[in-house]
Amino acid sequence: MRGVHFTADLFDCRDPDNLLRDGRSLASLCEELASLSGLNVVARQFHAFGPGVQGDGGHTGVLLLAESHLAVHTWPELRAVTLDVFVCNVASDNTAKAQALLDALVARFDAARVNRQQLVRGLPP
Amino acid sequence: MRGVHFTADLFDCRDPDNLLRDGRSLASLCEELASLSGLNVVARQFHAFGPGVQGDGGHTGVLLLAESHLAVHTWPELRAVTLDVFVCNVASDNTAKAQALLDALVARFDAARVNRQQLVRGLPP
Repeated sequence: MRGVHFTADLFDCRDPDNLLRDGRSLASLCEELASLSGLNVVARQFHAFGPGVQGDGGHTGVLLLAESHLAVHTWPELRAVTLDVFVCNVASDNTAKAQALLDALVARFDAARVNRQQLVRGLPP
Repeated sequence: MRGVHFTADLFDCRDPDNLLRDGRSLASLCEELASLSGLNVVARQFHAFGPGVQGDGGHTGVLLLAESHLAVHTWPELRAVTLDVFVCNVASDNTAKAQALLDALVARFDAARVNRQQLVRGLPP
């Protein structure tokens, strides 16, 4: 189950498509880009937050993939987003697909600053 | 949106509660432990994999939290599990709650080997 987990935390998003606040568009885009990247969506769940202590109308969502998952959390009041793409490489190496998906999503938010990190997953200690 | 992302990859799970294969019990346990840890579940999605190229009856699931998310992927044929707990610390510091949730989940799988990692999330580059 060895795999790779990419994260990207985005700041100062110009967000030309209003994805920070439009959960329906965000969900559709995630699904479209996952498929275009060659990953297999098996289920999805998105949730809209109202204004309040946790933020101002942000969205949190996940695509469950045959290869593992994509997670996104938006923070409209901060013009910020966190993204996770985690893929395991069972039948084939999905690293390039995961990278392509993350890159495509990052590009759509048009952020001024992006903090990327990655972890190797599924290896014993 | 500064937060922390804990991961744990578990190997050689003795799995006394058959959580690797019993998706319903796994989902219930995740939800119960998240609540016990003081985190707030806003939505959930679990998916059962049939036998095939991606594995042998494993489960993948996510709890969407007000604080971010929990993700779990089980690999019964490998007696292995990957766990993610990601929390942001907007209104309060949720680090201890996230750690408690991950520790409680790890304990239930009774793994011989556990590879833990963590990332600081939500900081600009």
